[in-house]
Amino acid sequence: MTVNPVKTSELEKLLAISSGLVSQQGNERLKVILHQVLGDICQTIKKYDITDEEFWLAVNYLNELGERKEAALLAAGLGLEHYLDIRADEKEAAAGIEVGTPRTIEGPLYVANAPLSQNYARMDDGTEQAEIMWLQGKVTDSNGKPVAGAVVDIWHANTLGGYSFFDQSQSQYNLRRRIQTGADGSYAVRSIVPCGYGCPPDGPTQKLLTAVGRHGNRPAHVHFFVSAPGYKHLTTQINLNGDAYLWDDFAFATREELIADPLKITDTHIAEQRKINQPHTEVNFDFTLVAASDNSDEAKIKRMRVME
Amino acid sequence: MTVNPVKTSELEKLLAISSGLVSQQGNERLKVILHQVLGDICQTIKKYDITDEEFWLAVNYLNELGERKEAALLAAGLGLEHYLDIRADEKEAAAGIEVGTPRTIEGPLYVANAPLSQNYARMDDGTEQAEIMWLQGKVTDSNGKPVAGAVVDIWHANTLGGYSFFDQSQSQYNLRRRIQTGADGSYAVRSIVPCGYGCPPDGPTQKLLTAVGRHGNRPAHVHFFVSAPGYKHLTTQINLNGDAYLWDDFAFATREELIADPLKITDTHIAEQRKINQPHTEVNFDFTLVAASDNSDEAKIKRMRVME
Repeated sequence: MTVNPVKTSELEKLLAISSGLVSQQGNERLKVILHQVLGDICQTIKKYDITDEEFWLAVNYLNELGERKEAALLAAGLGLEHYLDIRADEKEAAAGIEVGTPRTIEGPLYVANAPLSQNYARMDDGTEQAEIMWLQGKVTDSNGKPVAGAVVDIWHANTLGGYSFFDQSQSQYNLRRRIQTGADGSYAVRSIVPCGYGCPPDGPTQKLLTAVGRHGNRPAHVHFFVSAPGYKHLTTQINLNGDAYLWDDFAFATREELIADPLKITDTHIAEQRKINQPHTEVNFDFTLVAASDNSDEAKIKRMRVME
Repeated sequence: MTVNPVKTSELEKLLAISSGLVSQQGNERLKVILHQVLGDICQTIKKYDITDEEFWLAVNYLNELGERKEAALLAAGLGLEHYLDIRADEKEAAAGIEVGTPRTIEGPLYVANAPLSQNYARMDDGTEQAEIMWLQGKVTDSNGKPVAGAVVDIWHANTLGGYSFFDQSQSQYNLRRRIQTGADGSYAVRSIVPCGYGCPPDGPTQKLLTAVGRHGNRPAHVHFFVSAPGYKHLTTQINLNGDAYLWDDFAFATREELIADPLKITDTHIAEQRKINQPHTEVNFDFTLVAASDNSDEAKIKRMRVME
């Protein structure tokens, strides 16, 4: 703990008790971490001469945050979720571990157990008048060999930036599907071109962002979990090139290698093959999975999720 | 910020953006403080090699905390509210400012606008079979001169440790009264002897306390705001001597000068004068108010409160 310049014996004693360090019971790791966090908070209070009023505004903010269940959204908006990715990348680089398609944040809007299909699915329920998106690609290993039986779990927003389940106006599992690849490792979905997400304008996340002069918008993107037995689980997203927020994502998820170029398809032959029969937007994205180092690598990280 | 040993340029860049430091808009003080807090969190993640699973448990904990509106209770239980008192005491000592009755924490259970009486009030609604408490004392200035027209705002728990408003089984403003002193500066109330408070056993505050090997109990106590025009507002509590938790308050509010000795009154003459007509417990506590240095000193600190 680096509170030496400001600590007092009274504060030290308080922190030792309040973090549970002096107790015989409890989780030792949690006590040490809590002691660090409380010491840092007290040091910040002292360093910036935080007033009682400021302190209680912060406390009430936490109540608002939880009442709206926005803690995970805020963790993304403040870059902390991205920092976990920075650390995971650094660890892999330091260990010289092979990497495939880069990871990026999951975000707080995944819903487990979306309908599962082989090779192809239609993701939208047809209720929204929107540009049709044909999204396709291949899952391969790092040698370019197709991965059969990979599950590509896809979720994205509608044209208003809303996600089914959280946006109650959408049907169940709208724009959420799991596709299992066949022998050639390919997946394809028909959906609608998503629009960028924006934080709830009346919520605590947007309130804090606004207070520090930031917006709460994301570029148009599509989320993926890609997994297969023997391979390391991949959590990632792709961004659709051309979006105004492409490099100004409030959640810091954009990566050079994860940008896809939307392609306008006017060839009626292709459209007919896809049973779309109209001009539409094609998006191609291939995934490279790397071998799992152990079984725990095959699963996505544990985190509280909807329907899981 | 003291993150030098672990910072990376990627992290520095992330923090500068996520805290809003690079933005032209927003509150400059908030940005600097947020930058400090986020830097400390990232340093803690790195120092303790916090796993993704641990990180998301903490994020979900914040959601639970807010859903139950326990952020202020937790701030008391982790000693942060007491730390504000330590700082206020230190500042007064450093400035050589005269002090009267010591301050201690407000806690999260005040309700504004309790019924106001002159000199005396009965605080309990008579529904609880409990030991009667006669609580009395005087408000004086630092020369011992009575302060007339002082408002003594009193609130305390019932025999189950519950507070009206938060405990919906109690009548409105039960065990909450404001007494205005007369020319002699005295106040007196008839009430019931309170029992110690315990955190909601199924709530997030108790959950964290248990996880670090701590209990969530307070000794029997009575809360006070004491204020009068021209005098510095006093937020304090008294503890009833003899309670098992007297020096083991989970919220760190006990102070040597704030312990009152309950006295058993069996003198029927005194009981009759008080219209009690039975043996009861007497508690005496006098308050010393000091002169306000400016108008803002006369008011209690700003904080979100019920009915205010």
